[in-house]
Amino acid sequence: MIVIHAGFLAYEMGASRAKNVLASGIKNILAFAFIVPTFFFFGWWIYLAFPGGITVADAAADGLPWAQKMGPNLADNATGIFWGAFALFAATTASIMSGAVIERIRMTGFIILAIFLGSVVWILGASWGWHPSGWLTTEYGFHDVGAAGCVHLIAGAFALGVLINLGPRIGKFNADGTANEIGGHNMPMTVIGLMLIIVGFFGFLGGCIIYVNGGQWTNIYGQPTTLSAFSFNTLMGFCGGLIGAWVKTRDPFWMMSGGLVGIISAAAGLDVWYPPLAFAIGFFGAFMAPIVAKMVEKAGIDDAVAAVAVHGWGGLWGVIACGLFASGYPNINDMPPVSLMGQLIGASVFLALGFGSGFFLSLVLKMFGLLRVPPNSEILGLDKTKVPLAAYPEGLRAMPAE
Amino acid sequence: MIVIHAGFLAYEMGASRAKNVLASGIKNILAFAFIVPTFFFFGWWIYLAFPGGITVADAAADGLPWAQKMGPNLADNATGIFWGAFALFAATTASIMSGAVIERIRMTGFIILAIFLGSVVWILGASWGWHPSGWLTTEYGFHDVGAAGCVHLIAGAFALGVLINLGPRIGKFNADGTANEIGGHNMPMTVIGLMLIIVGFFGFLGGCIIYVNGGQWTNIYGQPTTLSAFSFNTLMGFCGGLIGAWVKTRDPFWMMSGGLVGIISAAAGLDVWYPPLAFAIGFFGAFMAPIVAKMVEKAGIDDAVAAVAVHGWGGLWGVIACGLFASGYPNINDMPPVSLMGQLIGASVFLALGFGSGFFLSLVLKMFGLLRVPPNSEILGLDKTKVPLAAYPEGLRAMPAE
Amino acid sequence: MIVIHAGFLAYEMGASRAKNVLASGIKNILAFAFIVPTFFFFGWWIYLAFPGGITVADAAADGLPWAQKMGPNLADNATGIFWGAFALFAATTASIMSGAVIERIRMTGFIILAIFLGSVVWILGASWGWHPSGWLTTEYGFHDVGAAGCVHLIAGAFALGVLINLGPRIGKFNADGTANEIGGHNMPMTVIGLMLIIVGFFGFLGGCIIYVNGGQWTNIYGQPTTLSAFSFNTLMGFCGGLIGAWVKTRDPFWMMSGGLVGIISAAAGLDVWYPPLAFAIGFFGAFMAPIVAKMVEKAGIDDAVAAVAVHGWGGLWGVIACGLFASGYPNINDMPPVSLMGQLIGASVFLALGFGSGFFLSLVLKMFGLLRVPPNSEILGLDKTKVPLAAYPEGLRAMPAE
Repeated sequence: MIVIHAGFLAYEMGASRAKNVLASGIKNILAFAFIVPTFFFFGWWIYLAFPGGITVADAAADGLPWAQKMGPNLADNATGIFWGAFALFAATTASIMSGAVIERIRMTGFIILAIFLGSVVWILGASWGWHPSGWLTTEYGFHDVGAAGCVHLIAGAFALGVLINLGPRIGKFNADGTANEIGGHNMPMTVIGLMLIIVGFFGFLGGCIIYVNGGQWTNIYGQPTTLSAFSFNTLMGFCGGLIGAWVKTRDPFWMMSGGLVGIISAAAGLDVWYPPLAFAIGFFGAFMAPIVAKMVEKAGIDDAVAAVAVHGWGGLWGVIACGLFASGYPNINDMPPVSLMGQLIGASVFLALGFGSGFFLSLVLKMFGLLRVPPNSEILGLDKTKVPLAAYPEGLRAMPAE
Repeated sequence: MIVIHAGFLAYEMGASRAKNVLASGIKNILAFAFIVPTFFFFGWWIYLAFPGGITVADAAADGLPWAQKMGPNLADNATGIFWGAFALFAATTASIMSGAVIERIRMTGFIILAIFLGSVVWILGASWGWHPSGWLTTEYGFHDVGAAGCVHLIAGAFALGVLINLGPRIGKFNADGTANEIGGHNMPMTVIGLMLIIVGFFGFLGGCIIYVNGGQWTNIYGQPTTLSAFSFNTLMGFCGGLIGAWVKTRDPFWMMSGGLVGIISAAAGLDVWYPPLAFAIGFFGAFMAPIVAKMVEKAGIDDAVAAVAVHGWGGLWGVIACGLFASGYPNINDMPPVSLMGQLIGASVFLALGFGSGFFLSLVLKMFGLLRVPPNSEILGLDKTKVPLAAYPEGLRAMPAE
Repeated sequence: MIVIHAGFLAYEMGASRAKNVLASGIKNILAFAFIVPTFFFFGWWIYLAFPGGITVADAAADGLPWAQKMGPNLADNATGIFWGAFALFAATTASIMSGAVIERIRMTGFIILAIFLGSVVWILGASWGWHPSGWLTTEYGFHDVGAAGCVHLIAGAFALGVLINLGPRIGKFNADGTANEIGGHNMPMTVIGLMLIIVGFFGFLGGCIIYVNGGQWTNIYGQPTTLSAFSFNTLMGFCGGLIGAWVKTRDPFWMMSGGLVGIISAAAGLDVWYPPLAFAIGFFGAFMAPIVAKMVEKAGIDDAVAAVAVHGWGGLWGVIACGLFASGYPNINDMPPVSLMGQLIGASVFLALGFGSGFFLSLVLKMFGLLRVPPNSEILGLDKTKVPLAAYPEGLRAMPAE
């Protein structure tokens, strides 16, 4: 699953202009670096603490950083593995935001935002809706086995909130409000990066299945499932997304992004879809994503890698699709079955949680002057002003594409 | 195993000239995208249907797209995983052809060819010779545990058939029939891509071993084997290939390609080789591959990445090597033992199946004008005429190498 | 674990100047190619032979290249897997040295050095201190579960010995002894390569845990441990390293190198650290590494990728840290417990073994004129003089960075 982060690194550096390549790389690496320890100190505790909503569960004691389970312990071969998987999911949420805000965000503000998103906000959402006894599931039958909602919808909504306060890159919009295309410096690197992210997502989704001793695989809600179902539907959702975006755009950046949208769109119901339905859900999600991206741009928001459309929209659609096509699927232990209403409630909660926290936190950072680099740094390029190293020391002649 | 496809993507884009980079990437991605659903709808059915040759087996009912096994099913944790692995093998066959035909094939024609190769042709071959009751094995003792024949030989032969009808790139051959070298735009990207393909092949070959409940690993023919054997011989074949190609060429493109040839050469008998023999078989395969490539070129055929030599020759040699050095190895259930004659029969069947179908299908596409882009598109570059995006938006100054 | 080698390849090519890119790639690939077969013929035998020091153990017979266990053997599913993992570790030691000596070493001399390091020197160290009955452990309680000492310290010390005889690249040092920075040609490629190395290291370290039938995981010394401990401490050590190097340098090359230092620093005691301690050990290791690199440079030694600082220092610190913070940890079977003295003895033995063999072997090669390319090859670039292929056939305009 770590390969996701090699992918995000390549993706984000490729999508930056040559003058900002290394600054984007540093930012991406630092998000990972700060989330892991903070996820140790309080992220995992939050997950265990809040499945009931805002009251602290007894089980949270196992997630305190001095708890016996939070370290080598010969009687416990599981906690570190779950913690590690969740920490990598946490870093993924931060990487989602990280791409959207490149080329003008201040490092300090970014790190604070990344820590909050990765070690507080999404994991609170996960505690509510991606936990065997999260209240969204116990009370409304919420179903999202592949974390489309708590990872992607929350991260995309959080990014949207941040982007509003951060503002567009200089040169993105003209005086009349029309938008310019700001290309990265290396599309092949971006496209290969996306493919590596997708490689990692197969591990990520495989990591959403839990093997219970006694010989049965289950999803995170304790419902029985199979690896077979995950294999079918991840591949079919991915390819539906690739083709949906290709039909709409013919653009390789959108094709690979669409593949990711397809995986996310199918993620919530990976355990239940008939595979051609997973394909169709992925197709629709990816076909719509460029339209969503255009709407975001029309609203004057500069999302450098379309993270809001890919992850925010993809996650939203994935959660809703589960309500449309898997309504009635039973839960264990007298919990209510899957329903459209339950999915809409879950989606609304995640949307509000992600957007609200991203918006308000970035607003506070803006007030303290920690959100955005000065205009001259942005124009000169962040590499020149912040990084003691050149991306291409022997030069890479930058000239306008013909 | 998905990492193979990240590798093919990097490899193929690196091997394209700058004017065709993204078009090559799109083509590669689309092959994957179309094969997965078609492999769901009919590819897997073909595998189950035709082990007897041309009569349909009863077991084929389990592969119909509406069969219970073709979707989430709590009583079946295996089908989706096998289907997924085979679908990825299918996409690999298409990627093999994909590299050979870059920089001048039409997208429509390519997709049709890719679907036929990936979801019909190779899987029919697999049903015959890479199946517990395939007729090549039950009647002739055919042995090819690592799919050198059905994947590589068929894909290489299919590519050869297509290349004949497709014709060389403009500028490849001079009026007097001599050939020019057409380099890609980024050799490091190509070499790293090849390395990623090889990383994935270790997974691919590991995926050729099946764990039978009761504690024994077997190959696809049901013969007992060990992971240990696969580990020894994959590594030794790989390194034999690296060194064989290095001795012959000193060229890093050929070294990495040779490593792949080495793996393919040793693949058919991965379960039986004494490791130094796997090394020698890999060495010989890779030493010969550049010679085969030169012969292909001398015949006026423009194979942009030497797919015919690497995969076609490598697969052929791998299958034959099993007859030369593993003759007499017993099969289970009264099937005849491995023999040189059986291997030659298998190789001939695959060669005819691959070459014949590639040749005739591309001939038909050519008659309908679907095979090749117009000359002016080819000269201008496919990115400019087909892709709404530049590979290097800030420019990457293209100038003749000194 | 093979992905480590895709990473080293990208890393080393990115860190080379454009004129030496492919020569660096070839060198890296050849090290791998020659180590695997030599590790089959004598490397594995050395490991089994010398745990007692210099007397040959009876068990060594199982490692002779004609032994039954050294090939497919239905009664043994383990040897090939262990051998394969160790062979990849061996190739890693050579890759560590490989980066340090780029842009001026002769291919013949390099291959000889790589074979000795990978198939003789480090594996002798492993036999002494990374083996269930290695004398360093049985007599001094030496503890190094993640191979920080035998892999990293030995390889870094060996590289140092070689660099002294090899001498600096032309232009590295001025007449007055001050050093110039010689950048690579593609920092993003280098940074992504480092990230792929790290991806692979998670597999590498996972490969240091052994599953014993009966349901208990153990480390290589037979002490019980858990995957959970490895997951916690690998991630925490990695992030401590990233942040330590960032605090010190703000440089993305050093950040990723620092992440690696962090993993190496925490490796010796992966099974015992309280995770925040692993973070701190990684932080300190990575914070110090650039200082060590500067000291190496001040001594007039040109280590192109800081391998001595990253691997040599990281491995040394990792081994010592185990003596400082895990003193008293018990060993099985009446072996002495972990102690600072035992760790210092182990570190000294590895340092002497690595440095001594690297220094003397390279001295001999130098006397025979096999160590360094002629100055005009070095100035023109090794690609032009040694490689029948251009890295960027369409040109990549090389100009001094502004």
